[in-house]
Amino acid sequence: MENTENGKKLRVAIIGGGLVGSLSACYFGKRGHEVHLYEYRKDIRKDELARGRSINLALSTRGRRALAGVGLEDKLVSHHGLPMYARMLHMTDGSTRAVPYDPVNNQCIYSVGRRHLNQSLLDEAEDSYNVQTYFEHKLINIDFEDGKLYFRRPACIRNCYPSGPDYWALSTSYPGPEQTYWPDKAELIEAQADLIVGADGAFSTVRRLMSRRPLFNYSQQYIEHGYLELSIPPTEDNQFAMESEYLHIWPRGSFMLIALPNQDKSWTVTLFMSHQQFKSITKSDQLLEFFKTNFPDALKLIGEDRLVKDFFQYDSSSLLSVKCSPYNVGSRAVIIGDAAHAMVPFYGQGMNAGFEDCYLLDDLLHNHGLSLEDALEAFSKTRPINAHAICDLAMYNYVEMRDLVARSTFLWRKKLDTLLYTLAPSKWIPLYNSVTFSHMDYSKCISNRAMQDKALKRMLLAAAVGGLGIVIAVWQKTIRTYLGRKL
Amino acid sequence: MENTENGKKLRVAIIGGGLVGSLSACYFGKRGHEVHLYEYRKDIRKDELARGRSINLALSTRGRRALAGVGLEDKLVSHHGLPMYARMLHMTDGSTRAVPYDPVNNQCIYSVGRRHLNQSLLDEAEDSYNVQTYFEHKLINIDFEDGKLYFRRPACIRNCYPSGPDYWALSTSYPGPEQTYWPDKAELIEAQADLIVGADGAFSTVRRLMSRRPLFNYSQQYIEHGYLELSIPPTEDNQFAMESEYLHIWPRGSFMLIALPNQDKSWTVTLFMSHQQFKSITKSDQLLEFFKTNFPDALKLIGEDRLVKDFFQYDSSSLLSVKCSPYNVGSRAVIIGDAAHAMVPFYGQGMNAGFEDCYLLDDLLHNHGLSLEDALEAFSKTRPINAHAICDLAMYNYVEMRDLVARSTFLWRKKLDTLLYTLAPSKWIPLYNSVTFSHMDYSKCISNRAMQDKALKRMLLAAAVGGLGIVIAVWQKTIRTYLGRKL
Repeated sequence: MENTENGKKLRVAIIGGGLVGSLSACYFGKRGHEVHLYEYRKDIRKDELARGRSINLALSTRGRRALAGVGLEDKLVSHHGLPMYARMLHMTDGSTRAVPYDPVNNQCIYSVGRRHLNQSLLDEAEDSYNVQTYFEHKLINIDFEDGKLYFRRPACIRNCYPSGPDYWALSTSYPGPEQTYWPDKAELIEAQADLIVGADGAFSTVRRLMSRRPLFNYSQQYIEHGYLELSIPPTEDNQFAMESEYLHIWPRGSFMLIALPNQDKSWTVTLFMSHQQFKSITKSDQLLEFFKTNFPDALKLIGEDRLVKDFFQYDSSSLLSVKCSPYNVGSRAVIIGDAAHAMVPFYGQGMNAGFEDCYLLDDLLHNHGLSLEDALEAFSKTRPINAHAICDLAMYNYVEMRDLVARSTFLWRKKLDTLLYTLAPSKWIPLYNSVTFSHMDYSKCISNRAMQDKALKRMLLAAAVGGLGIVIAVWQKTIRTYLGRKL
Repeated sequence: MENTENGKKLRVAIIGGGLVGSLSACYFGKRGHEVHLYEYRKDIRKDELARGRSINLALSTRGRRALAGVGLEDKLVSHHGLPMYARMLHMTDGSTRAVPYDPVNNQCIYSVGRRHLNQSLLDEAEDSYNVQTYFEHKLINIDFEDGKLYFRRPACIRNCYPSGPDYWALSTSYPGPEQTYWPDKAELIEAQADLIVGADGAFSTVRRLMSRRPLFNYSQQYIEHGYLELSIPPTEDNQFAMESEYLHIWPRGSFMLIALPNQDKSWTVTLFMSHQQFKSITKSDQLLEFFKTNFPDALKLIGEDRLVKDFFQYDSSSLLSVKCSPYNVGSRAVIIGDAAHAMVPFYGQGMNAGFEDCYLLDDLLHNHGLSLEDALEAFSKTRPINAHAICDLAMYNYVEMRDLVARSTFLWRKKLDTLLYTLAPSKWIPLYNSVTFSHMDYSKCISNRAMQDKALKRMLLAAAVGGLGIVIAVWQKTIRTYLGRKL
């Protein structure tokens, strides 16, 4: 077994038992380290009421390679994922148009259920990789110098907090104000680790503690749009109500609806629009009118009663983009996944990038003969650039998906890309394909696209010059003919 | 007395007793509100050992207007400030060149001592405006809904914290890791306020608590360079060792030295260079060699022994730029000064912008018939754009001061600006002048400069076209002459 620092077995504390935390636990467990995973929520496998930030996700090549690394690709992708080969665009007039993700090699992305994925990863971590899990452990503080961690038990928080909101009710989507007033009877749990892995999501406590150290660059940016999840039930004969091999999109310029298929033949439908627009819809008839005008076909499938119930049950959620660096504190701590680079969901890469973090970190730690500190430094030198790149791409796709995707310029560019990709599949990889179906550095995907844009401009210029040449030739001939006739 | 919301007297809690907090306290006190000012350090008037982030500062027009609003301009500026009319550039060859700040109207900026300013403002707040001050009160939490504030007393923190660093030793320049483990005997102090004003600096606790609320955009960016303060003593006959009416600069491309005069005829000298470069100088002879090569004239004035002692006494400090929005939480809280917009120090506007916040907030709260909430919303809608603008300008000046300022293109542009400013003083205000000597919105200063750049380009183009016209005319004449001769 090749462990870090010449086979040294580390005591690893993973903070966060979501998708990225539990996969990371598998990786460290597989290498023979002693892994303790701390999660502040209840065990999702026992908690019927758990409500995540989104019900299903699009798994693509980067995520699959990372799952394969701990032997979970087949189990989770082939057996559980629902393939989606194209975007299916729904226009306002009811017409539809499929735009394949990869018309050349026919690759697909997979709709996977967050809950199933999370449960499987936790099972695997415990059963196959000997990971010790601790639920309802809220990280409070870290002493980065001596590797001490401090947790609070929620029973105490819920029962003892003298006033104010219930921390746990708030915390699935948003952590609420800090709780720093701990009464005497509060239960404090201490732990000790060689390495602390912060996989505690967009509102990461590990990152927050790191951000108070010198020279930590950080930004969090909310976008104007929020989202709200709705659903389309299976048909009466228990089939999908729409063709299932697509990611359905209703692009409407300043807002949009998307739908991803679930294992139980239902669809999770997500409405993205500005917080202001969400606030402006306060009554059932307003809501129905809005859907009748903009999404008449979707409305039929959702059903009016279900729409009204789901829409008014929860507030819309907000969307956050986080960039920071460095990702490590010496050889003591590292952040991965949303904790390091939360992004808006429009490129379907949030989970994939987080899973790729696990893969790359494992590789750096174990395959290059690096010390623990050097491996973390290397991760922190190379990964932020790529994370920032995919955050930017996701922000760009925020416009593309709801607006550009329905425009003819976008479709023409897509066709041109496809043509060139067909002609030179190893040289001309369109942006979406390099991001979704390759392991190319995200930053390389962007510089690649910039080169392609330049090349296209040159081609267009050459074509224009060529065209002009023809025009001139024809014109000269005409002149000559005219002169010939005249003379 | 015109109070907010039709004369309602507010209970105002100011967090932070630095320059901006104590000025803001004066403003609120002047309007008849009940003001409580909480500061986590010791009272600077009693603490001989207090060491601020920088010893002296450049006060300019915006700051002066704000001081005038509470009757302190004369006392602090005319009686205590040292006027600086120009930058004095020191070249490597020992030559010097003065570049006036305002060659047209001969306006100046003032070097003021942070400590004296802070002490005067605190005295004024207590004596003239009935402000109640509380020192060694560390803000721990805020309940924004009911306006409750929680503080800890440092005696307890220093004596009771079970392990780890001394919070107060660290906290002048950098707050250190969060202390959330409070032993049973910790003293907790509660307070209540209608309005909470966060003026608690670049590492603001108020902002940190606000940043965990939804839709709060935030970024903190450290630059590559740090700084370290040195000093030049008075001469033996107790005079300034250099001409005092200048801000002296030794621009050296990737690093620089600056010096501002103090009341006691000494100079505060600040060395700015990359953290890496700071780290690379570990021995006295290295340091002396570095100064002999780059700042021979300054070295003579500082003295070798003093340089070595000061340089190795403290670590270099880091420089941080903070942008965020919104600045308010409903009608309950607002952040001002560095808490809202810490910036790198290269435009000399950090304190001035913070003082301007006090002035503008007071104006919005009391002169426009707005409700408290509407006034704070208005502040939060208009101020961040301008704060972001000055943060960006300061970042730009980070390059200008250490590099561009010594280049001939910069000096030519400066001359051209001066010429046009002289010709049309109300229409062509150079960027530095609008920032430093006017109350123009910072964002307007930038757009103004962009317009000027465009106009200059057009002028240059016109000149070029004119020049080309002359060339062509001459050329045609030559041709004609030639042809005339030939024919």
